[in-house]
Amino acid sequence: MNNKLDALREEMKKHGIDVYLIPTADFHNSEYVGDYFKAREFVTGFTGSAGTAVVTSDKAGLWTDGRYFIQAEAELVGSGFELYRMGMEDVPEIKDFVRDNLPEGGTVGFDGRVLTAKQAEDYQKIADEKHGSLHVTEDLVDLIWSDRPAMACSQIWILTEEYSGESAASKLDRIRKKIREEGADCHVVSSLCDIAWILNLRADDIAHCPVFLSFLLIGPDDATLFVQPEAVTDEVRTYLDECGVKLAPYGDIYDGMAALSNDTKILLDRREVNCRLAEALPDSVTVIDKANPSVFMKAVKNETEIKNTRLAHEKDGVVMTKFMYWLKTNVGNTQMDEYTVGCYLDQLRGRQEHFLDLSFDDICAYGENAAMMHYAAAKDIAAAVRPEGMLLVDSGGHYLEGTTDITRTFILGEITPKMRLHYTTVVRCMLTLANVKFLHGCAGISMDVLCREPLWEMGIDYRCGTGHGVGHILSVHEGPNGFRYKVVPERSDAGVLEAGMITTDEPGVYLEGEYGIRIENELLCVEDEKNEYGQFMRFEPLTLCPIDLDGIDPEQMTPGERQQLNDYHRLVYEKIAPHVSEDEREWLKKYTREI
Amino acid sequence: MNNKLDALREEMKKHGIDVYLIPTADFHNSEYVGDYFKAREFVTGFTGSAGTAVVTSDKAGLWTDGRYFIQAEAELVGSGFELYRMGMEDVPEIKDFVRDNLPEGGTVGFDGRVLTAKQAEDYQKIADEKHGSLHVTEDLVDLIWSDRPAMACSQIWILTEEYSGESAASKLDRIRKKIREEGADCHVVSSLCDIAWILNLRADDIAHCPVFLSFLLIGPDDATLFVQPEAVTDEVRTYLDECGVKLAPYGDIYDGMAALSNDTKILLDRREVNCRLAEALPDSVTVIDKANPSVFMKAVKNETEIKNTRLAHEKDGVVMTKFMYWLKTNVGNTQMDEYTVGCYLDQLRGRQEHFLDLSFDDICAYGENAAMMHYAAAKDIAAAVRPEGMLLVDSGGHYLEGTTDITRTFILGEITPKMRLHYTTVVRCMLTLANVKFLHGCAGISMDVLCREPLWEMGIDYRCGTGHGVGHILSVHEGPNGFRYKVVPERSDAGVLEAGMITTDEPGVYLEGEYGIRIENELLCVEDEKNEYGQFMRFEPLTLCPIDLDGIDPEQMTPGERQQLNDYHRLVYEKIAPHVSEDEREWLKKYTREI
Repeated sequence: MNNKLDALREEMKKHGIDVYLIPTADFHNSEYVGDYFKAREFVTGFTGSAGTAVVTSDKAGLWTDGRYFIQAEAELVGSGFELYRMGMEDVPEIKDFVRDNLPEGGTVGFDGRVLTAKQAEDYQKIADEKHGSLHVTEDLVDLIWSDRPAMACSQIWILTEEYSGESAASKLDRIRKKIREEGADCHVVSSLCDIAWILNLRADDIAHCPVFLSFLLIGPDDATLFVQPEAVTDEVRTYLDECGVKLAPYGDIYDGMAALSNDTKILLDRREVNCRLAEALPDSVTVIDKANPSVFMKAVKNETEIKNTRLAHEKDGVVMTKFMYWLKTNVGNTQMDEYTVGCYLDQLRGRQEHFLDLSFDDICAYGENAAMMHYAAAKDIAAAVRPEGMLLVDSGGHYLEGTTDITRTFILGEITPKMRLHYTTVVRCMLTLANVKFLHGCAGISMDVLCREPLWEMGIDYRCGTGHGVGHILSVHEGPNGFRYKVVPERSDAGVLEAGMITTDEPGVYLEGEYGIRIENELLCVEDEKNEYGQFMRFEPLTLCPIDLDGIDPEQMTPGERQQLNDYHRLVYEKIAPHVSEDEREWLKKYTREI
Repeated sequence: MNNKLDALREEMKKHGIDVYLIPTADFHNSEYVGDYFKAREFVTGFTGSAGTAVVTSDKAGLWTDGRYFIQAEAELVGSGFELYRMGMEDVPEIKDFVRDNLPEGGTVGFDGRVLTAKQAEDYQKIADEKHGSLHVTEDLVDLIWSDRPAMACSQIWILTEEYSGESAASKLDRIRKKIREEGADCHVVSSLCDIAWILNLRADDIAHCPVFLSFLLIGPDDATLFVQPEAVTDEVRTYLDECGVKLAPYGDIYDGMAALSNDTKILLDRREVNCRLAEALPDSVTVIDKANPSVFMKAVKNETEIKNTRLAHEKDGVVMTKFMYWLKTNVGNTQMDEYTVGCYLDQLRGRQEHFLDLSFDDICAYGENAAMMHYAAAKDIAAAVRPEGMLLVDSGGHYLEGTTDITRTFILGEITPKMRLHYTTVVRCMLTLANVKFLHGCAGISMDVLCREPLWEMGIDYRCGTGHGVGHILSVHEGPNGFRYKVVPERSDAGVLEAGMITTDEPGVYLEGEYGIRIENELLCVEDEKNEYGQFMRFEPLTLCPIDLDGIDPEQMTPGERQQLNDYHRLVYEKIAPHVSEDEREWLKKYTREI
């Protein structure tokens, strides 16, 4: 029996709610959420990072995706929640379940702060169909969660112009110009990464994502940051004052919206702002529903960010090269497992100057575990790492100079011809995309296939995008750039590739029960020649770490592909060799040799 | 002085119209139009296939694109019309010109039958901004065009099920199912190709596009064809009666729309139906604005169509091979120019069994003329074809078995190393796309770059899509399939590639003042293996004609690319050799040899 479910149903009854939704979300549509926002986990017991609970008077369901079927099934035992495997045949979508279970004239409820205005539209439509209504003003879980963790409230710090490359005042100016161009008077930003980027402020409210809970309202001449006062030091207060940014309590954003004067035209993104925020607007206010200008602006890195990002990748490349040397020379001699290997890598990163945080939790997956794309080794059940097969390590760091994301798959001993074929092919895929020259105007959707094609030839796919944009000391995943061969509307990563954007290039082969291979470099988009056909573009690799030659069969590569690999390895040696020990340098020489 | 312009302004005054638009269009948003619909040509004197005239009390402009700048400039002399070069800097878009020249409270006018409902929205918006109005019920050009040609009214004929592969009744059934799925009661079709496909009828109302002027209203159990009675033979009348299709006069469609009963839900595509048709709907009628189901259905060719299309390409391949033999063995010995060479080719096609028509006017362009993508040789000023350089020939036919579109560039003598490099690269581009294996779900936008990339590497682009869908004894250009690396909304060619779709693959190099190279094969999309990653797809070449080996440097191709070309040439020889003379066969053997 799940007392929480009973208590929740009691509250639903009190509030006249027939169907209640609990997604995995904060008030800002963040990709990952802090502990305070783990209401779905609290009610269901399921600890995965993605899932939505839906409760009616007699049914309770938990929807999650393929990554979590096994884990969710185990964790839901005794919870009273039934598992709905998303994407499987005969499993209804959440919307259809809500429609089917909402009685005529009934009420759909959710905390209006944890669904976007756009997401809420679907439920409004369902409620309308049933001549019912929405109830979005109550967080029912809060009423039954007595020991709820406090909302994160880390101290905000200033990313000085030396590191940001552009003052907040200048960014606000550029955004105000866009606001005017869109015919709006003001603009509300609720995406935490956007706010941190605009104001050149960082904090630690979400694990591995250095942001702070806040809303930002930008007017023609003024701006107001709605933020927890405890997070703001005197220094930050003074800094914001100088930027012309006033402070208001975090929770006052809703009153702030309600207080907008008649006939205001507000620019906001209904796919980003929460439903309650949009609902708070007076009827006389006109919404101009467009993407935040800051999404595009922050994706195009400025010169300082680019220069520093190169430094960050040098530091990170040194870490990864030392790690690779240690791993390949010690495996078989030293006892190691996925967990301890990951800890070793984290320690190396932690020792680098200006290291701030990991940019995400490492994936350190040995053998068949690497076939699970989002595998996380747990301390007690980590697989031993032995001198055979392959180890996949996907990791990254935030440094004061920038953010990194790198995957290498290391050959630890004998591998089969099939493994070698797949390893070599993944490297070919990665290099082909990295070395393409293209006309400005291409989005990732036009380029993805260049990476994927060698695997498709073999009848293999990696079932995910080829790459994602990378934030600058922000979320390691950001739009509007990305590589994907089909548009996935909720991903917002189909934007045109512009000079200054950074995107990962990470093809892979994942064979269930056998092994997983992924090689990931970050690519900086730069301008190439401009001629009568237009502006040509290309990529420069940012990531600096050998691609394990022990996995490669040069015979399977064209001379051009070998040249690409040799050029890359020459770059790695040049940049990394000065920063490692003599033994490591000798080894590096060998592992960046021409093939 | 242009009396027509004065007369038009007189009519504008009478009707209280301040800005009048005359596009190049019929009532069906057709790609090409019959003589009756050449109102823009009548008023301006400009004979090109694309352009829009806009007239105010003191200004008169003709907008056209880069293909026609030189021709339009010459033809507009003395017309009173100024040329607006579309896409050039500082040239206003038509919409902006209308906005700038419409007085406050003024009226924008056009014949509401020659703009789509969607296009008209833009002008409605402009009129609203100026607190003015639209006037769409009068064709002012008709009032001043005393010797206007009659509307085309060719005899309709039945494409029997032996050739269509599916009865009209079955097609109507499938469409009615779609109508119900979209929640509609009925559906109006105004696209002539769609109507011809649905009813398995053909005619000759537009040059090279075997359709007939008509509208089709499909109800739950009935259907009405609005058509010129003179076009309908007794046989067709009986046939339609058996299909459950009633007849009504062509012009009655507007009354037909107005007569729809209250609360009807009608499926229609506002990007296709004309503005006056949409305006005629009673207010109580709900429009479900979606693409015509027939667009997708007719693009996916059925087994009969595919089998017959292969036959059509065999016939066409024999024509092209004989032509190539004749051209290459006679050039330099026989006097020939672009025009006579084109005529020779047309004669060869015309002699094939079941030949119906050319599928478009040949492009037969020698030397630097081939750099103009849409060059049309005129009889009197055609360039002589000599035994040097290259001749580009883009042509095709309608046969009872299907429609073809093929381009070959022939080497007529010595060529430079640069020509050889470009020729070989274009062939590599074409073959790469033709031989790709891909996962179902890809649209052309994801695949285009595979074709373009070898040229982009050299800093060259062909400035147009890589390919278009091909109709079956219908327009040689059709959606929703195509290859293009950027979405061009008005093209509607970004649909997912499905088995049974036919798309051209036609990369090129066009160097102004030097030469042009294009190689075009049609590709049939087919299913490949299906496995745990999904349904893989590939292409089969339909087009059968040697790619001139005299232009190819095998050293510039990878072994895999040479294999692709050899495989293709083996297929060409197998299919074509049985149908040509002994001399031709000997020659064909040589021109399809392994390299």
